[in-house]
Amino acid sequence: MINLPQTDKKRVVIVGGGFAGLKLTRELERSDFQVTLIDKNNYHQFLPLIYQVASAGLEPSAIAFSFRRLVRKNRDCFFRMAELRHIYPERNMIQTSIGKVGYDYLVLAAGTVTNFYGNSDVEETAIPMKNVSDAMGLRNALLSNFERAMTCSTAEERRELLNIVIVGGGATGVEIAGALAEMKRFVLPHDYPEMFCDELQIFLIEGQDRVLAGMDKRSSVEAERSLKRMGVKVILGQQVKDYRDHAVTLADGSSIPTQSFIWVCGVKAAPTDLPSNLLGRGGRIQVDAFNRVQGSDNIFCIGDQCLMTADPAYPGGHPQLAQVAIQQARLLAANLKRMAKGEEMRPFGYKNHGVMATIGRNRAVAEVGRFKWHGWGAWVTWLTVHLMFILGVRNKALVFFNWLWNYITYDSSIRLILYAHKAKVVIEREEREAKEHLGK
Amino acid sequence: MINLPQTDKKRVVIVGGGFAGLKLTRELERSDFQVTLIDKNNYHQFLPLIYQVASAGLEPSAIAFSFRRLVRKNRDCFFRMAELRHIYPERNMIQTSIGKVGYDYLVLAAGTVTNFYGNSDVEETAIPMKNVSDAMGLRNALLSNFERAMTCSTAEERRELLNIVIVGGGATGVEIAGALAEMKRFVLPHDYPEMFCDELQIFLIEGQDRVLAGMDKRSSVEAERSLKRMGVKVILGQQVKDYRDHAVTLADGSSIPTQSFIWVCGVKAAPTDLPSNLLGRGGRIQVDAFNRVQGSDNIFCIGDQCLMTADPAYPGGHPQLAQVAIQQARLLAANLKRMAKGEEMRPFGYKNHGVMATIGRNRAVAEVGRFKWHGWGAWVTWLTVHLMFILGVRNKALVFFNWLWNYITYDSSIRLILYAHKAKVVIEREEREAKEHLGK
Repeated sequence: MINLPQTDKKRVVIVGGGFAGLKLTRELERSDFQVTLIDKNNYHQFLPLIYQVASAGLEPSAIAFSFRRLVRKNRDCFFRMAELRHIYPERNMIQTSIGKVGYDYLVLAAGTVTNFYGNSDVEETAIPMKNVSDAMGLRNALLSNFERAMTCSTAEERRELLNIVIVGGGATGVEIAGALAEMKRFVLPHDYPEMFCDELQIFLIEGQDRVLAGMDKRSSVEAERSLKRMGVKVILGQQVKDYRDHAVTLADGSSIPTQSFIWVCGVKAAPTDLPSNLLGRGGRIQVDAFNRVQGSDNIFCIGDQCLMTADPAYPGGHPQLAQVAIQQARLLAANLKRMAKGEEMRPFGYKNHGVMATIGRNRAVAEVGRFKWHGWGAWVTWLTVHLMFILGVRNKALVFFNWLWNYITYDSSIRLILYAHKAKVVIEREEREAKEHLGK
Repeated sequence: MINLPQTDKKRVVIVGGGFAGLKLTRELERSDFQVTLIDKNNYHQFLPLIYQVASAGLEPSAIAFSFRRLVRKNRDCFFRMAELRHIYPERNMIQTSIGKVGYDYLVLAAGTVTNFYGNSDVEETAIPMKNVSDAMGLRNALLSNFERAMTCSTAEERRELLNIVIVGGGATGVEIAGALAEMKRFVLPHDYPEMFCDELQIFLIEGQDRVLAGMDKRSSVEAERSLKRMGVKVILGQQVKDYRDHAVTLADGSSIPTQSFIWVCGVKAAPTDLPSNLLGRGGRIQVDAFNRVQGSDNIFCIGDQCLMTADPAYPGGHPQLAQVAIQQARLLAANLKRMAKGEEMRPFGYKNHGVMATIGRNRAVAEVGRFKWHGWGAWVTWLTVHLMFILGVRNKALVFFNWLWNYITYDSSIRLILYAHKAKVVIEREEREAKEHLGK
């Protein structure tokens, strides 16, 4: 039972509290709508920095923000921790893991999930890095592999444990490769004096012929050069065929033994039960210039989950970036308010404010309009922009403190292998919900 | 395979890196011993503050400290993440989860585990709070229960979800009750405006006739009065008989419905395979005045895991406190060095530097020698002492920042329900180790 108060206001139900869903929620504060935000977690995640959670530079709490804290100033705004199960467009209602809820406007903003391209071996064994929980899992797995390497009995197993294979040369892959290369250089020689540091090898595998394929060619060249200088083995133009018996097989038949197999090479839109004819490339939900889902006038989709081909500058759809999500959310909020006043909605046009990626200490690549730069200046820009965009004074202060500390001491000291104990009431509740879901 | 380098130095193997084991390790730095510290976690935990992790005031990383970082300055000191499985005194060897290792001196410092007094219903369902992982689990469970309470369909379930029952009125029970009472007062009304705050009830159940039974009677009275003023229902002189169907049954037949059932009412020494005739009260390993295990001249036990009745001031054994552990470790380090020089060992005598407990914002009770005080002064003493004893400048700074923030804003903002994803390589490794253990 979703338990929302009755009101005369029209109800907007937003599914997903990422950049898009959260922005929309905040833009609709103190408006003539009752807003319900649904997310399967109780916190917003600042995804551009999860790679630093994985590499033990930041704690989850520094880049996560409680939804309840975010909505608590607004009387007509509600948060519910739940997962979307079904959409009933004809009844203006959705089914969630905690019950049904009706809507006047439904906004899908559930983002993306990791794409394993149908390879079940990879899906079962690869370590994803799509959210804070994954990032914590990756950190635990890497540290646990290092510990194991100190005590394992065969050279073969030791090699598997000390090879890290990152598949995907986009921003996430480049950033995690850079962070791990720094950990190898500055932290591990002290922590593991018995490990010969050359034994730890970091591989970055990319199917296209350059890393950061979404950026300018010069940025790709610069990023590749930086990574190689830091000791990362960059393998371009190679697809991963399979992962089995602790080894990655590449398309050319070669293989790399590893127990640290990180998969960041693609995403697909979070699945819904909307008919497949409404979906486009990467499972994205096709929307018109007003982010309306085809054939509906009160279901919208914004952010990475949608595919809009109506923007003349981006006929193939927009890149899946936070900026697009935020701009779409802002426009949709304005459009909903316009509609309520009987005004015309305005179509979306994306303004690219620039893209960036960081490659470890003091190095980054940045592109803003015609300007492209790299090195220390780009790195400072990167730091500043990310610090600005993290929500909340406390989180900004924590991230800044941690960055300063790590920069000065060359030591990211959060190297704990830690899993939360799961209480039996929670396990039982999860099992019950899963069963109810299957029963339907 | 434990993989330690050969050396002429005598080898000290220390099992457990709590206050006792860690202190001993550090005291033996740069000595004529080769030291190997074994712990099942890769971090030291500052247990006096785990209740603040549970109540979302601190992150685990603020009160946990990587063992590798602690031992890295010492060339003859090694850390291995492993669990003790068997002791073979006649062969001067132990079996661990990662292999065998021989010792010249073995020091058991594995502390205590939660005591469920043989009640399997309680053991299965109660939420323990004995380490950082438990504390994270408790935080997740409480927050998840609050979320559920917002959407559950029956008044009965809602009551179960909003009753918190803490069993055990020692320092941990009193401190977590105080912290949750403050959360109820300052945080929850904002986070859950739809929850009537009176609905959330906190019960503290203690079998003896007063809380803080280890402290002076006046401290007990003061603590009880403070807790009651904060809205905690304190139930004294009542044993918990059982927990079933989401309800706690007390000895007098009454019952309290709850899904947040926190068990902090007793500990027993961490079990080993030493013969049971060597054990005393609470499963503690009996030792002589030099912390030597009976019948052995090179196996020692220090800290909460041991029971020493040879100290004339404490004929019934020492209280299980950090101070005792630290003092025993310090003496044992000195005694091992004395032995190496052919000198006589010195017997242990505990010097009580005082005990304290905090009961939320601005309130604590403290006893040092004949002096007993409470209120704001005791609270400041408590803060200062704990800050001094936390390891590492970074952790001190983080804890201080968080305390200051929470104090000023009345808002501990780490209210995330977060479980780390567990990678398949890690799951497989754990299963393999568990199987090997059973097979032996």
